[in-house]
Amino acid sequence: MSALDQTHDRTLTSWVTSANGHADFPIQNLPFGIFQPHGGSPRGGVAIGDEILDLREAVSLGLFEGPAREAAEAASGATLNPLMAVGAAARRALRLRLSELLAEHGAERAKVEGYATILLHQAADCTLHLPARIGDYTDFYAGINHATNVGRLFRPDNPLMPNYKYVPIGYHGRASSVRVSGGDVVRPNGQRKPASEEFPSFGPSRNLDYELELGIWIGPGNALSQPIPIAQAAEHIVGYCLLNDWSARDIQGWEYQPLGPFLAKNFHTSISPWLVTAEALAPFRSAQPARPEGDPRPMDYLWSEADQQAGALDIRLDVLLETATDRVAGRRPVRIGGSNTRELYWTPAQMVAHHASGGCNLAPGDLFGSGTISGTTTDSFGSLLEITEGGRKPLALPAGETRRFLEDGDEVIFRAHGVRDGFVSIGFGECRGRIAPAI
Amino acid sequence: MSALDQTHDRTLTSWVTSANGHADFPIQNLPFGIFQPHGGSPRGGVAIGDEILDLREAVSLGLFEGPAREAAEAASGATLNPLMAVGAAARRALRLRLSELLAEHGAERAKVEGYATILLHQAADCTLHLPARIGDYTDFYAGINHATNVGRLFRPDNPLMPNYKYVPIGYHGRASSVRVSGGDVVRPNGQRKPASEEFPSFGPSRNLDYELELGIWIGPGNALSQPIPIAQAAEHIVGYCLLNDWSARDIQGWEYQPLGPFLAKNFHTSISPWLVTAEALAPFRSAQPARPEGDPRPMDYLWSEADQQAGALDIRLDVLLETATDRVAGRRPVRIGGSNTRELYWTPAQMVAHHASGGCNLAPGDLFGSGTISGTTTDSFGSLLEITEGGRKPLALPAGETRRFLEDGDEVIFRAHGVRDGFVSIGFGECRGRIAPAI
Repeated sequence: MSALDQTHDRTLTSWVTSANGHADFPIQNLPFGIFQPHGGSPRGGVAIGDEILDLREAVSLGLFEGPAREAAEAASGATLNPLMAVGAAARRALRLRLSELLAEHGAERAKVEGYATILLHQAADCTLHLPARIGDYTDFYAGINHATNVGRLFRPDNPLMPNYKYVPIGYHGRASSVRVSGGDVVRPNGQRKPASEEFPSFGPSRNLDYELELGIWIGPGNALSQPIPIAQAAEHIVGYCLLNDWSARDIQGWEYQPLGPFLAKNFHTSISPWLVTAEALAPFRSAQPARPEGDPRPMDYLWSEADQQAGALDIRLDVLLETATDRVAGRRPVRIGGSNTRELYWTPAQMVAHHASGGCNLAPGDLFGSGTISGTTTDSFGSLLEITEGGRKPLALPAGETRRFLEDGDEVIFRAHGVRDGFVSIGFGECRGRIAPAI
Repeated sequence: MSALDQTHDRTLTSWVTSANGHADFPIQNLPFGIFQPHGGSPRGGVAIGDEILDLREAVSLGLFEGPAREAAEAASGATLNPLMAVGAAARRALRLRLSELLAEHGAERAKVEGYATILLHQAADCTLHLPARIGDYTDFYAGINHATNVGRLFRPDNPLMPNYKYVPIGYHGRASSVRVSGGDVVRPNGQRKPASEEFPSFGPSRNLDYELELGIWIGPGNALSQPIPIAQAAEHIVGYCLLNDWSARDIQGWEYQPLGPFLAKNFHTSISPWLVTAEALAPFRSAQPARPEGDPRPMDYLWSEADQQAGALDIRLDVLLETATDRVAGRRPVRIGGSNTRELYWTPAQMVAHHASGGCNLAPGDLFGSGTISGTTTDSFGSLLEITEGGRKPLALPAGETRRFLEDGDEVIFRAHGVRDGFVSIGFGECRGRIAPAI
């Protein structure tokens, strides 16, 4: 876990004035991403207010030295994989230097601000790309309320599997179809067999859903057959994003036995473009919530005192929906759910340690999903499956529409913020996707 | 499906004399791989008898023109991903030209043989690498006898799931831990909970197994949201290899509900190093075996007349075991199982069409496993789980040892051959792995 330092100082402001009071990207955040300015090539940048600092140009201008320069150069190319590989020390040196360069009262403000036209791009004028070439993508199932809610639909008396409180359940997902936020999510075709029909049929999914997840970016990896001890696991996490694990529930229900979800999930996964670093989130760590009495203690390979004390994240999550009708009418998106990462039964470090415990090798640019994060009340659920109890109780929207599952034209928007007294709030930016009709 | 042409002529022999009568690599095969000569860098090559033709050197010597040159250049680098991307036409042109260059009675034999010291490397002196950077790895479950045998262990009266004969069941596997044949496979640690114990414990897998599978290499891919019609699916397959889906049965049994296998499989997957092309296998295609009466016809998106007529493969498969005791005693490996790819319920083209049917994008260098290929008799089973009925009936080896599951020091060897009257047999080379003790 990262320590607090001067980059978290609540009194810090930036000469990039749009950053001051910005809901997502004040100077205390400094997330990394890959952006493409109009007419330019993709390269690494840092979100600051409504603008993006161009790391390639900043390196060319000689603004970094030592480990900070090493990290900035690693973040100057078309993917952040090299930055993810450098390790926490260089990454922290870069953060410290970026904070200094962008600070309203920084020693070099005059010089740096003089470069502003070279260094800064209006975010609205840039295209954002995936932050990394994703090697492998793994989806966990650590949202215990989601697992309970979904399990209850199938097994009312015994919703959680016997392994749930011992094993950080996860499965491999499809890396090639992970896409950055924005644009269309095409409704998949697939085999569906409702209980009311004798035989399956092939056609557009009728039960298309979102899943609200935290994305976890892996930094330095491990060699095959060399597990990662839980005490070192946090050092392998470079940062976080939002992740929408779009799910076709009808396809999933028919295909998933006995080897798990496949086509129900691999048609598209959306992530937010900005990698919010572990360092930026230092103020928003929390103790792992106490397990209910009777729950087993995590096994030794999943237990460290430091992780239990500060390994969880305290991030507020929101799900908004904008329907096609809303869009035409000019209505703002409606909040339909959301919760907090404190609802996760396993910490990100436990996921890393578990994943590598049998020897599986992780690599810089691997991505984990946390599993759907739901609270315990309907307005805190992270999927329509839970909100509508499998489609049986449609959600009533304020303008009079209802939803069992997603309809064509619906746009789902995730947002996330770290909020804590004594600190400036930071955000993740948005993770968006709009449902397009099946082909 | 590829057509027969002069490269399959049974009377063809090579001036590389070790190729003539070679069990795996006669001139009718010409598989591609990535090899590294002593002191050199990894590059593409072609197995011919006991030697490897260096494609980088062959390009430098100007031996190719037109599409053959395009393909040869694409195969000259450190991975075959570029070759996989070029498509069937250029790949076939390269095969035709290689056959001509290596033929005993080829028009340019004298010139080419004069380059032999530059062009050829003794395979025994070279290191073989993975043929490609694997983007995503998917494991299917198309071995219906395996699915039945495994299902019977858990559900004696109803071993196959209701979806099995409609859905080419598959799941995403771990790409990062796929390794080329040879070397150690370290026994994984993990959570296990035998029925006899009240609580799970963490430690070395006690039920380590192999799974005999065909590997399928994807060539040209598809864009996200653009399915691949079944009639075109075969053109997206560049070739085949052997694949050992090492499996920790005790870890699998405890972790796999409800999202499928994870750590039980992702510690190591072995593949044979040579990509046997779809073109080389043209003589060893067969009609898809007739489905038993009462089985449903494949849905339209999985049905093409051409695929039903010639989309299956007729490849003999063998599993051999060499124990540490055998090795010390100088005994040869013992055949303990093996079957034929005709036991697969779905063709490779059906796997491709299904995978992309919901819009998932495939890419050159993606790898599929077929699922474990078992026959219907104990000596044809593709895993110890099936041979020993879950460990209950130990396998008696000829020299007096027995096996429930794999022990440290055991080496598992897969072999495969296309055999058909009127054609020269070709082989895949070996897929080997030796169990090393848990760390």
